[in-house]
Amino acid sequence: MNFRSDLAIENYEFTQKKELRGVKVEELNSEGCAVSRIEVLDEYGAEAVGKPKGLYVTVEVAPFAKQPHFIDGSLQVLIDEMKNMLPKKGSVLVAGLGNTSITPDALGPKCASMIFATRHIKGELLKSTGFESLRRVSAFSTGVLGNTGAEAGELIKGAVDVIKPDFVITVDALAARSVHRLGNTVQMCNSGIVPGAGVGNARQEISARTLGIPVYAIGVPTVVDAATLIYEYSEADEGVPDAATRMMVTPREIDLMIERAAKTVSLAINCALQPDISPEDMLILIA
Amino acid sequence: MNFRSDLAIENYEFTQKKELRGVKVEELNSEGCAVSRIEVLDEYGAEAVGKPKGLYVTVEVAPFAKQPHFIDGSLQVLIDEMKNMLPKKGSVLVAGLGNTSITPDALGPKCASMIFATRHIKGELLKSTGFESLRRVSAFSTGVLGNTGAEAGELIKGAVDVIKPDFVITVDALAARSVHRLGNTVQMCNSGIVPGAGVGNARQEISARTLGIPVYAIGVPTVVDAATLIYEYSEADEGVPDAATRMMVTPREIDLMIERAAKTVSLAINCALQPDISPEDMLILIA
Amino acid sequence: MNFRSDLAIENYEFTQKKELRGVKVEELNSEGCAVSRIEVLDEYGAEAVGKPKGLYVTVEVAPFAKQPHFIDGSLQVLIDEMKNMLPKKGSVLVAGLGNTSITPDALGPKCASMIFATRHIKGELLKSTGFESLRRVSAFSTGVLGNTGAEAGELIKGAVDVIKPDFVITVDALAARSVHRLGNTVQMCNSGIVPGAGVGNARQEISARTLGIPVYAIGVPTVVDAATLIYEYSEADEGVPDAATRMMVTPREIDLMIERAAKTVSLAINCALQPDISPEDMLILIA
Amino acid sequence: MNFRSDLAIENYEFTQKKELRGVKVEELNSEGCAVSRIEVLDEYGAEAVGKPKGLYVTVEVAPFAKQPHFIDGSLQVLIDEMKNMLPKKGSVLVAGLGNTSITPDALGPKCASMIFATRHIKGELLKSTGFESLRRVSAFSTGVLGNTGAEAGELIKGAVDVIKPDFVITVDALAARSVHRLGNTVQMCNSGIVPGAGVGNARQEISARTLGIPVYAIGVPTVVDAATLIYEYSEADEGVPDAATRMMVTPREIDLMIERAAKTVSLAINCALQPDISPEDMLILIA
Repeated sequence: MNFRSDLAIENYEFTQKKELRGVKVEELNSEGCAVSRIEVLDEYGAEAVGKPKGLYVTVEVAPFAKQPHFIDGSLQVLIDEMKNMLPKKGSVLVAGLGNTSITPDALGPKCASMIFATRHIKGELLKSTGFESLRRVSAFSTGVLGNTGAEAGELIKGAVDVIKPDFVITVDALAARSVHRLGNTVQMCNSGIVPGAGVGNARQEISARTLGIPVYAIGVPTVVDAATLIYEYSEADEGVPDAATRMMVTPREIDLMIERAAKTVSLAINCALQPDISPEDMLILIA
Repeated sequence: MNFRSDLAIENYEFTQKKELRGVKVEELNSEGCAVSRIEVLDEYGAEAVGKPKGLYVTVEVAPFAKQPHFIDGSLQVLIDEMKNMLPKKGSVLVAGLGNTSITPDALGPKCASMIFATRHIKGELLKSTGFESLRRVSAFSTGVLGNTGAEAGELIKGAVDVIKPDFVITVDALAARSVHRLGNTVQMCNSGIVPGAGVGNARQEISARTLGIPVYAIGVPTVVDAATLIYEYSEADEGVPDAATRMMVTPREIDLMIERAAKTVSLAINCALQPDISPEDMLILIA
Repeated sequence: MNFRSDLAIENYEFTQKKELRGVKVEELNSEGCAVSRIEVLDEYGAEAVGKPKGLYVTVEVAPFAKQPHFIDGSLQVLIDEMKNMLPKKGSVLVAGLGNTSITPDALGPKCASMIFATRHIKGELLKSTGFESLRRVSAFSTGVLGNTGAEAGELIKGAVDVIKPDFVITVDALAARSVHRLGNTVQMCNSGIVPGAGVGNARQEISARTLGIPVYAIGVPTVVDAATLIYEYSEADEGVPDAATRMMVTPREIDLMIERAAKTVSLAINCALQPDISPEDMLILIA
Repeated sequence: MNFRSDLAIENYEFTQKKELRGVKVEELNSEGCAVSRIEVLDEYGAEAVGKPKGLYVTVEVAPFAKQPHFIDGSLQVLIDEMKNMLPKKGSVLVAGLGNTSITPDALGPKCASMIFATRHIKGELLKSTGFESLRRVSAFSTGVLGNTGAEAGELIKGAVDVIKPDFVITVDALAARSVHRLGNTVQMCNSGIVPGAGVGNARQEISARTLGIPVYAIGVPTVVDAATLIYEYSEADEGVPDAATRMMVTPREIDLMIERAAKTVSLAINCALQPDISPEDMLILIA
């Protein structure tokens, strides 16, 4: 596979086959958003799609950078798909992956900073606020190996050991193959994540296998590798210059796009986790 | 004690006694910097100074906001005092405490982001760079309870369990009693920290008692509580308005001061931990 | 006058007189917000209140830092008072004053960056968007003398000469006498501004006298001088330490407060200038 | 010309001709940096190179993102070439062009904020600091049309009318054709600038013709248009997707690159304008 993509849907489409052994695909339209559900059933499917066994749901939303309303149809589809995938009960740790100093990689930390953390809210306060039923949520950002000296997976493991959540959600910026996917796509899966895989810098896997509890990974494609872009359009393997491999392709409005994507995705996670709170009220709780 | 201070030296001075049972004080001048070493020897001393048993070293440096050179006499005094206090060998985890969204509280996270993390640098790379003797360092920021739902101490505990450092250094912004202490003072101690104690919002203790390994706490006073300021000058307990208790006093140049303090303190820590690397080279490694 | 304040209402209250020669005061309650209108009628009034002839309207709003809804009763009162004061027609240049690198002084530049600039939108585009009636608005930030080498007033004069607006609105952070005024007050006046007056660093006047067109000044108090705070509570002139004069008092949540105040004030200005656009739509146009 | 480039050297190289009528080219190596001087002599040359008459000097420096030392051989070459081109005497206004909210476009404003402004320093202060001979410098950022409603050129014209400098320097981020040029190239010219020309969004010319005084333009290429990248490698005009035209190609480390480039370029300008101050001292004056 010459094209790097963190998106299961792109890897599936790249095969240009309608049917793949070990892969079940469902495509539908929900409130104007294209939703695809790709289920990788076994090792055959895993090899075909380049992803471990699990369910990969992709939602195409209105472009983040052109979406000043956070509360619209796209948001509700995101909330619904997250509710479908995530456990209905149990406490959760949300971990933001990525580098705050690299704009297109800052999605994870920005999201984590907008998660409605509730684990520390005591019972009495809960009652007084009328929020008796709040799910216990905690959130943090892992930083990146070059700055911390620790794998994101290690710091999550440590946090899990102490906080003892029932499951983990990771949030990360992803690499796509096609520029058409940038800033209008959210992928969620139940098989965890290998951070950096899409930019050729794979880090320690973060999954049920490594943490011992379910790991859901939510991501938004924010970059295309420059070499991938060239390769896709030139149809020539050789012409790709070495310098291009250190380049990334992003929308011009990447700074705005990241802001909006982080706000939308964190809002969707917050609402999926606390279904008794409306998006409008959640925006105020987090603001 | 009506005046809140995170500085042992201020609590000592506030007693206006030359000698205190259970407290040993040494004051000296090192390369133009006033250095004080207050040793709290027992429970009598702990009560008198409002700090647990341990050694508290305060270095008065040139004002951070007026100190564009990072490499000067003050830096060397800081490095020397840190070297004196910290273990000569062993791996370390540096934890930045505080809130990146509140300027005077952002010292810890900013410092942590400038720590020279080495734990992930493999042996062969080390040899090739001529850095065979690098001490293993990792670093991360804990965030704050309201945003993460987890105590700083919990996240440090989790990281310690996985990373297994020999000791921990915390970095935090402190509250002083006197505005004269703002932006020109560094306190380091070997007894850990109770974050937020100086602003009346005490959090979980972070110490050898809670982590099982030595904890060194390094801090810079960046705010005075407004009520403390009023109380100090009005000498009247009653007049302090409620609104003032939600106010803080900072230098006008607080944004610049925090930038510079974070750079200086992180540079001092980096150099104290890696004595074979000069401050000049360290600046380049971190830049 | 020993207390520095940029607020006419505070200077008036400080006199502790119900009636002042040359000053007309009206106080009312509008949709839950206290509104005061102080008219300085002549030189007697100007001396009594420490402000040039003109109308000074103060609106007490819900605390910015606790106001996640931008669109509420406070906003409408701000819009209404601005509409009352500003010319009903004519083009305008909005100038943000202050220093983006000093958090409590960044209100002006942040506001200016959220002004809905329309001067460059061509007639055809206007028609296609249904906005035929848009008032012509331009906006910029002046920076500060120490960084630019030019007075804010000079750069505004230059911009006015080229852009030729019918009037100017300045936006600036103000200094208050009382901490109770911080983060919940907006002052607007029709007599221009002497930037920095409230922090003892008066700059060139920006007014109809210097620009030749009307100048409206809108501001939010964000700091109290530390010396003022001490003086107010200690009732002693002498005790104020020199160091305190370089300190400022701000709410702990100053960073958040500035964000919200800038968003609210810019939204109010935008809506007052373009009455055909609802606040909801304006939020989207600016987002 | 299908390739958009703001760099005269790239347009020249694209012709693949050694000699061009109306163009004089000099290439040399200065302290390890490749320096090219392209002189556009007449209208023939202007058409061939796609640039107005004037001198275009390009300096290839060590990659900004890998250059933690600001004071090195590259800096001296930049200073020397600027000194060669700029008037030896006279006051100057430095104008930063570009959008602070778009990382690769923020070079101009960041540079402007680090210019050593001296115009406001009074004679006596100058003497007391030993800086009698300081050239009078002012600096500001123009913002962008969409946010201000005013062309950068208009705001510069206004500032020039009031400040009356002897010449203007603009600083802007540029678009290159080749990714090899990103982050290691500085172009300076004496013919002014048409901002945005390289990204297909040409704005009002800023030149001696429009301002009445000499205009020197200094820029650093920070992006390649995605369509240009594809076109260059695919050698096919048609295949370029519409979406790609809204994409840009940048180095992964673009945030760091912009920080460093702004610091280096502003330092070079400061030193070229004030030759009596060493780079080391200038760094301190600006810090």
